[in-house]
Amino acid sequence: MNTGELVELGQQLRVDSVRASAAAGSGHPTSSMSAADLMAVLLANHFRYDFDRPAHPANDRFVLSKGHASPLMYAVFKAAGAIDDEELLTFRKLGSRLEGHPTPRQLPWVETATGSLGQGLPVGVGIALSGKRLDRTGYRVWVLCGDSEMAEGSVWEAAEHAGHEHLDNLTVIVDVNRLGQRGPTRHGHDLDAYARRFQAFGWHTVEVDGHDVDAIDRAYGEAISTKGQPTAILARTLKGKGVTDVEDREGLHGKPLKNADDAIEELGGTHRNIRVEVHEPPAARMLHAVPAGHLELPRFEKSGSAQDDKGVATRDAFGQALAALGSGRGDVVALDGEVGDSTRAEFFAKEHPDRYFECYIAEQQMVATAVGLAARGWVPYASTFAAFLTRAHDFIRMASISGSGINLVGSHAGVAIGQDGPSQMGLEDLAMMRAIHGSTVLYPCDANQTAHLVTAMAGLEGIRYLRTSRGESPVIYGPDEEFPIGGSKVLRSSDQDRMTIVAAGVTVPQALAAADTLAADGIRARVIDLYSLKPVDAATLRQAAEETGCLVTVEDHRAEGGLGDAVLDAFADGRPVPRLVRLAVRTMPGSASPDEQLHAAGIDAESIAAAGRLLVEEAIVR
Amino acid sequence: MNTGELVELGQQLRVDSVRASAAAGSGHPTSSMSAADLMAVLLANHFRYDFDRPAHPANDRFVLSKGHASPLMYAVFKAAGAIDDEELLTFRKLGSRLEGHPTPRQLPWVETATGSLGQGLPVGVGIALSGKRLDRTGYRVWVLCGDSEMAEGSVWEAAEHAGHEHLDNLTVIVDVNRLGQRGPTRHGHDLDAYARRFQAFGWHTVEVDGHDVDAIDRAYGEAISTKGQPTAILARTLKGKGVTDVEDREGLHGKPLKNADDAIEELGGTHRNIRVEVHEPPAARMLHAVPAGHLELPRFEKSGSAQDDKGVATRDAFGQALAALGSGRGDVVALDGEVGDSTRAEFFAKEHPDRYFECYIAEQQMVATAVGLAARGWVPYASTFAAFLTRAHDFIRMASISGSGINLVGSHAGVAIGQDGPSQMGLEDLAMMRAIHGSTVLYPCDANQTAHLVTAMAGLEGIRYLRTSRGESPVIYGPDEEFPIGGSKVLRSSDQDRMTIVAAGVTVPQALAAADTLAADGIRARVIDLYSLKPVDAATLRQAAEETGCLVTVEDHRAEGGLGDAVLDAFADGRPVPRLVRLAVRTMPGSASPDEQLHAAGIDAESIAAAGRLLVEEAIVR
Repeated sequence: MNTGELVELGQQLRVDSVRASAAAGSGHPTSSMSAADLMAVLLANHFRYDFDRPAHPANDRFVLSKGHASPLMYAVFKAAGAIDDEELLTFRKLGSRLEGHPTPRQLPWVETATGSLGQGLPVGVGIALSGKRLDRTGYRVWVLCGDSEMAEGSVWEAAEHAGHEHLDNLTVIVDVNRLGQRGPTRHGHDLDAYARRFQAFGWHTVEVDGHDVDAIDRAYGEAISTKGQPTAILARTLKGKGVTDVEDREGLHGKPLKNADDAIEELGGTHRNIRVEVHEPPAARMLHAVPAGHLELPRFEKSGSAQDDKGVATRDAFGQALAALGSGRGDVVALDGEVGDSTRAEFFAKEHPDRYFECYIAEQQMVATAVGLAARGWVPYASTFAAFLTRAHDFIRMASISGSGINLVGSHAGVAIGQDGPSQMGLEDLAMMRAIHGSTVLYPCDANQTAHLVTAMAGLEGIRYLRTSRGESPVIYGPDEEFPIGGSKVLRSSDQDRMTIVAAGVTVPQALAAADTLAADGIRARVIDLYSLKPVDAATLRQAAEETGCLVTVEDHRAEGGLGDAVLDAFADGRPVPRLVRLAVRTMPGSASPDEQLHAAGIDAESIAAAGRLLVEEAIVR
Repeated sequence: MNTGELVELGQQLRVDSVRASAAAGSGHPTSSMSAADLMAVLLANHFRYDFDRPAHPANDRFVLSKGHASPLMYAVFKAAGAIDDEELLTFRKLGSRLEGHPTPRQLPWVETATGSLGQGLPVGVGIALSGKRLDRTGYRVWVLCGDSEMAEGSVWEAAEHAGHEHLDNLTVIVDVNRLGQRGPTRHGHDLDAYARRFQAFGWHTVEVDGHDVDAIDRAYGEAISTKGQPTAILARTLKGKGVTDVEDREGLHGKPLKNADDAIEELGGTHRNIRVEVHEPPAARMLHAVPAGHLELPRFEKSGSAQDDKGVATRDAFGQALAALGSGRGDVVALDGEVGDSTRAEFFAKEHPDRYFECYIAEQQMVATAVGLAARGWVPYASTFAAFLTRAHDFIRMASISGSGINLVGSHAGVAIGQDGPSQMGLEDLAMMRAIHGSTVLYPCDANQTAHLVTAMAGLEGIRYLRTSRGESPVIYGPDEEFPIGGSKVLRSSDQDRMTIVAAGVTVPQALAAADTLAADGIRARVIDLYSLKPVDAATLRQAAEETGCLVTVEDHRAEGGLGDAVLDAFADGRPVPRLVRLAVRTMPGSASPDEQLHAAGIDAESIAAAGRLLVEEAIVR
């Protein structure tokens, strides 16, 4: 398109942003108007995309990091012919796929859900990495950021990653409209301030008037021709550009225009019906090659007894199983936050270096990269200490809104890590992961179980979480045992059971030992290994409750949100609820040996047996 | 100290780091050895600190951001005479205050718990802000970082904040030993790479050989004399410096030295007993001035009925109460993540601009600043959308390890926000905050309740969380009603109650309406407003269970970790558990009006009444 056409297209995008927000009675028209010219030039002259075939492997990818500017995105979809005007005006209404902030749930042209600022660029980096290292179909990744979100550390985590990886297929456009939600940003219209920062992280930068379509056009050309570096285009814009009433004014963030009709008239009215013929992507194979191999899971020999001190750490089993899965499935990729020697992701890295992504100590970027890779059809496993996954909580939350299929693995769970102390202990991870919508939460207790669950995760929907342990634990299952998601294992059972101990992970051997102690006292206890915390095996738990009357739950996790709560989920539909005692970590641990930690937290065999004894004797009640 | 003495002191710190780790059988001696000379020069020549009076208002403050180098910190404490050699060798043992990673729980010379990388500098920025804007006793803040943690976005979030605030009382020392946990860092020994980044964020930088004590000494002098900018000292060091076997070698992170005796001999043996006379801080008032004012809480008029659509939003009540609290208490400060117009923290900002900290869109830095301010005796309230507090989860977790007393306020909770969609909805915040050790979790339903809880929070220990709502809600309590922490309010009660509805926040008016509907059907329902989710009012819940037989819990939050689980906590000690049904948000919401959202999620009055009816009729069971 030429200058005049681009200007008109920009105005159309503004008009449609104003109209959509007015129809909704809410939304962010002014944040859309500042970036309208930037989007007009991108759509008309540089973006290569087949809107009829969003899965086309060579399609460019666009991420709206400033997700509140969704009216602009939907106006672009309309200009590209992907949606019609009628649908545009369903914006933010019940049942509309044009949500307040874009999600890919029903919109195939949206790569990832945005709306939590500072996440679009990190996910864009993940997609660009996929393009550069795996897909290699030549697509470019374009990310539109706001200036306010430059305050998020995750933006610079991403900038560091992109610079280090020389992602010259990535362009970020920063819509520097100088106004955040509540007032001016830190740097106002100082484009140099942003340029210096991006340059320091190894980026090429271009400063441009974001309302000069020719200058924008040249800037995009410069970005495309820049080799060996990602490019940041810093565009000076005005919030609410084009409407005198609102242009460059504070206090209007996130509000539809008061006089929408006047504004539309000032923007040239609704007569335009520009339909952009978007550039086609180049021909490319429809799917990246995924060579199928032979899946041979590691097999671990059963320990002599369930109380063996020696055995295999579940983190070791995870690493071995992941490496094997990588051999069996060409679409499996792995990422780690610079602790691969601890999580054992390094086993995968050694066997499949081409599909391994070192994320350094940057958990937000690690999860964002996983989301980006998943968006391109890969099956990512991202690992770090369970404790440090809390760093990426907001990214995991947003990934669930995207419907992203990613595997997260948290090692060094619980007080059982021993001497390192609470900063390294995952004690809140189960609560975090269980509350994520549609998540799967797994916590294996032995090596064979771990290997099976690692494999099963690959085939699930949504966010899947595996919790692993640092220390060795006895191998209590044979290598051919099966562990369905949503299942459990009844490890001790008799028709004389007077109680049930429900455990998972490191507390399973403790539960077995406690059951032995109780049996010696004449109290038979059922023991359930609840390796699938979500979904939970309600049937087995209900049966145990009916048959044994009461439960002891025991977990190496805080009392809130973990195994105990998962067990109670099976009884939240109005049925009778069994009496129960919940053993969990209720104090702040310090440094001590693993055994001392379990004992101090009251989750070792001795504590379980004591609780069980009291519960059965009902002495514990009041 | 002169050159020779400093060199000797550095060697002593190395020897003691090796000894402590050897005695523990774990720990990070090599990460301690790289920074030993940096710490020797700081302690002997620049740090102004009275180890006998850690609360001295003019003491410099030191933060070990690379918390795994704890042996070095404890060796420094020994050199300063704060601990003796016997205690040094208790490192990492059960009951020792010398934990694997430092915490201030029992060590008054530790400002904040570290061990999750990338958090020490952000907290240091908070302390430096306190020094610059509030305390004004002239202290300096020194932060020792590792080079690996430079990959964390939170470091650059902090760098941006410190540069923007011109924190020339802050010095960060980066121990660039080029080796992370699993291998080389991104930038190895390229000091310039780090310098460029810090400079871009407005810092003064000094590059130095981290084993040349005279150069280090000059660098510290330069940092102290630099005005208007924070200083970053980038020190080229060798991991394991001083011991041939381990110096600059990979694969030795986090491991005690194999041949500790040989290493100690190579380092000159244990003969040194250098005791450093640390420079005294200048005289200063012992406490920052906290003028007491008159606390006059806002008073809100009761609505005509509990089903009034109009009323007062709890976020408005929060803002007004916080502003009033700021007038009554001079030690209260407020922070917000650039959404103060939404959270209503702006009400405080307008009345108390000197005690308001704009954190821009940087939730990690916001929480870290709060931790830093709390460490200096201030009472911070930090607010943003509840959803975006997940961004700071790891910081909140670490704050609880510090025993930090901070108030967090999350607005825009739940699906009740309406059109903005799931990215803006706090639906996991209660799960996150309840699982934090020692936390208090409050969720008011009306304006007067909010005002009282905002005030009560100030006097609590640990992490306190208040959840507020976007929309208006009826004022159901009078302004003189009392709301003890750990309490609840029984809003409907009779001796014919056949069930109890437990609600909080936006579901309270829904519960009352449901009770009316049920009453019309001849089913009397008790209604409990469970405004304190943690601690929970176990006595009232237990009484309701006994008297009414069954419960419906209803919450604008995910089913995991929120109100339903809080209710069940009252029955986790072996006593009989009532039958219950839990209503919560179990789908992924889109955009819709608040009422449509509550209905779609099944947490409105109609859904509650339906669930109650089924529960009482026991039709719901199997």
